[in-house]
Amino acid sequence: MSDDSAEEIMEATYRALCEHGYAELTMQRIADESERSKAALHYHYDTKEALLRSFLDYLLERFEQRPAAAEDAAPRERLDTFLEAIFESNTSEGTGFATALLEIKAQAPYNEAYRERLLEWDRAMRGTVADAVREGIETGEFREVDPERVARFVATTINGAHVRQVALEEDLGETRELLEAYLDRTLSPGDPDGGGAPV
Amino acid sequence: MSDDSAEEIMEATYRALCEHGYAELTMQRIADESERSKAALHYHYDTKEALLRSFLDYLLERFEQRPAAAEDAAPRERLDTFLEAIFESNTSEGTGFATALLEIKAQAPYNEAYRERLLEWDRAMRGTVADAVREGIETGEFREVDPERVARFVATTINGAHVRQVALEEDLGETRELLEAYLDRTLSPGDPDGGGAPV
Repeated sequence: MSDDSAEEIMEATYRALCEHGYAELTMQRIADESERSKAALHYHYDTKEALLRSFLDYLLERFEQRPAAAEDAAPRERLDTFLEAIFESNTSEGTGFATALLEIKAQAPYNEAYRERLLEWDRAMRGTVADAVREGIETGEFREVDPERVARFVATTINGAHVRQVALEEDLGETRELLEAYLDRTLSPGDPDGGGAPV
Repeated sequence: MSDDSAEEIMEATYRALCEHGYAELTMQRIADESERSKAALHYHYDTKEALLRSFLDYLLERFEQRPAAAEDAAPRERLDTFLEAIFESNTSEGTGFATALLEIKAQAPYNEAYRERLLEWDRAMRGTVADAVREGIETGEFREVDPERVARFVATTINGAHVRQVALEEDLGETRELLEAYLDRTLSPGDPDGGGAPV
């Protein structure tokens, strides 16, 4: 399959997930969003699950190719660029997709291939945060914290924001603001009050 | 229906959810876990969704009747008792149930009755945390923070721990420990370093 074909199928899958969610997703509905027949999709992917595995790979690849902060950006700016990429999905299309993604997460205990990909995505997110924190400590911009622990806490908060967006219809901005205050407070060096206003 | 009958059906629903998850839950499977026939269940509940609404009410009621900290417990002890109640579900039965609960959360956009109950549950959790924080500020045990903001952050972290338990098979203890460190750091008054070791 050409890269263009794969990309076209992945985009059709994204639209079908936004519209129908995961449980109601069918190969026919993906075909309806693409320029292909259901038979053509089945030629490349045996099952909906096989297609979804490729789709999760595609998402991870997109995450890894997201617009990066400038080469010489300060560590805090890197963190802000990361948060921007994570929280930008707070649109109505984004909510449909967020719902489908939560359904997929709830499928992970039944589907090892989904779980592996979700773990990989989590590692990528945490790695981005931990690298920026580590660099900030080296340059003296941040205080001496454990980069892995901060990264895990940030990832957990992002996971929580995702559930709250879907289950409680909460605006992602609520969590983003709390998370930024947490980072200010945790990372700021040498503030006698321990890094600005408490959360 | 007697209280005993209702309780028996709710316990059967819990066991069926642990075993089969939400998507695969049927009235027959709930009946199989109880001493009743499927017809008897249908006499009280028209649909699986109606039964699940009652089940979510039952969970909330149980949460509200959970063992409380002693009447004269210090605010921090109240918070610890709350965290204990939240994180105690980290057993294998608990993991099955956590998965079903995440499926239900992913259904909330399609089911207003589920969403209302999840919102109520979230308010109860946040209320418990905010009340303890407020009291600790009054007694001088905690520093001056915004109790609602701390409560929202704690709830978001708990939501994140839930997803990570289900999707990534992460031990809940990982988040619990980070959350306790966050609370120490956020609430401790007057520590010149801002409340102990940074997270």
